[in-house]
Amino acid sequence: MARLAYVNGRYLPHRHAAVHIEDRGYQFGDGVYEVVTVAAGRMVDEGPHLDRLERSLSEIAMAMPMSRRSLQLVGRELVRRNGVRNGLLYIQVTRGVAPRDHKFPKQARPALVMTTKHIDFAAQPKFTDGVKVITIRDQRWARCDIKTIGLLPNCLGKQQAADSGAYEAWQVNDDGFVTEGTSSNAWIVTTDGRLVTRHLGSEILHGVTRRTILAIAAEEGIALDERPFGVDEARAAAEAFVTSATSFVTPVVRIDDTVIGDGTPGPLSRRLLAWYRDYVAGLRDTG
Amino acid sequence: MARLAYVNGRYLPHRHAAVHIEDRGYQFGDGVYEVVTVAAGRMVDEGPHLDRLERSLSEIAMAMPMSRRSLQLVGRELVRRNGVRNGLLYIQVTRGVAPRDHKFPKQARPALVMTTKHIDFAAQPKFTDGVKVITIRDQRWARCDIKTIGLLPNCLGKQQAADSGAYEAWQVNDDGFVTEGTSSNAWIVTTDGRLVTRHLGSEILHGVTRRTILAIAAEEGIALDERPFGVDEARAAAEAFVTSATSFVTPVVRIDDTVIGDGTPGPLSRRLLAWYRDYVAGLRDTG
Repeated sequence: MARLAYVNGRYLPHRHAAVHIEDRGYQFGDGVYEVVTVAAGRMVDEGPHLDRLERSLSEIAMAMPMSRRSLQLVGRELVRRNGVRNGLLYIQVTRGVAPRDHKFPKQARPALVMTTKHIDFAAQPKFTDGVKVITIRDQRWARCDIKTIGLLPNCLGKQQAADSGAYEAWQVNDDGFVTEGTSSNAWIVTTDGRLVTRHLGSEILHGVTRRTILAIAAEEGIALDERPFGVDEARAAAEAFVTSATSFVTPVVRIDDTVIGDGTPGPLSRRLLAWYRDYVAGLRDTG
Repeated sequence: MARLAYVNGRYLPHRHAAVHIEDRGYQFGDGVYEVVTVAAGRMVDEGPHLDRLERSLSEIAMAMPMSRRSLQLVGRELVRRNGVRNGLLYIQVTRGVAPRDHKFPKQARPALVMTTKHIDFAAQPKFTDGVKVITIRDQRWARCDIKTIGLLPNCLGKQQAADSGAYEAWQVNDDGFVTEGTSSNAWIVTTDGRLVTRHLGSEILHGVTRRTILAIAAEEGIALDERPFGVDEARAAAEAFVTSATSFVTPVVRIDDTVIGDGTPGPLSRRLLAWYRDYVAGLRDTG
């Protein structure tokens, strides 16, 4: 069966899924997106993802392209048709097709595209071995809380990480604080066992997985600080990890040239990953 | 005759001109572009535009999608086929189609899209009456010298201008200095007759029209300063204007609620526009 993509009302063979060259997503990056984990055929944190999609759209003066209920149905239908048991659902909304002009078009209908991907979340060495991250300058715009498709700085950072044999690049702002990874939130565990991740604001994406991990940690009675942390503090941390819809909780065992802890995934990182896996599998309710 | 677009090797009817949904331009804003003025069938500043395209691509680790000479030929052919005497040629290059992943794809071929537009540069009240600009916070990323298609902040700013009945929004950085408009460079004329525009750097686009105007002004013996200027200095200026491939020299007669000069296009702005029109028409060589 050919893989399908949903494009503006139609389920099309993926290889023929196209949009007009004057879709504002293509010429202006004028759109937003979501990535939803699919685990054992279930959508993980579907509600919070739709909430965030609605908020991102609102921040760029757009409405939802269809009702929440319809978005849910279309997403689930695409996942079903593509036979995705484990993987992701990608949802992208742009301001639609209009003659090129920076101003918003008066007539355009929002464009909606969805794709899926199969991912075997079990068989990934990153969870057991941990990963390396590098630190880079945060070059992004002032509204990183909006999940826009304007991801060139993120792509450049991720490629820089790959060129260094690293999994991710942690972006460091002009004040010397780590904001987040190029496609994940950044976390450390201090030597006295406190879990630290940057507070919400316009400098980071309000990660859905971040939110779930905070809820799990609170339920498990782990001391939490949502506050800025710098590169030096991160290098001196007992543990570090990243979270995202596809990274789950991925332990970080090296930041630039500094080995974190004993160079293997730390105990709290491992427990959080296990709890999060339970959550993803529907074995615990927190989130 | 149907208007044509050039898309990856083919001249297609514009309404059928499409790209794949996994073109990285659509999902990541991973591409760059140029807008070249066409005047009386001639490409204006074609060389500098191709230079800048090559530089933008190089800054995001991409090569030209074809030789300069081939790009020239394709662009000119599209202009010819579409019968454009006056208007613009739009050129966009992205990193091509690949399964969604922030890292650069190993296999993808760059995608090249060109479109044209007819514009009557003569019959525009903005040249004779001048325009209003508003000032907004510069929210963009740290590399505004790269002419990327990631233009969401520019679109939001331009729409904010339109909502205020203004032509353009001048972006003001955290130090209180005007960087540039959302699709044009910003200029003032001081009360002692000096022409001022922000110096080159990563905070502004290196405008091709800006460059030509500087050359013309130098040839005409006008005192020039390439330096930062703030909003207060701009409001107190004798004249103001913006430049771009389609704005030429557009006089600014109001900044927010402040009338500039006597509220009509200033004498130096008008002279620069006239000289630039001569240049565009091929009547003077400077540039």
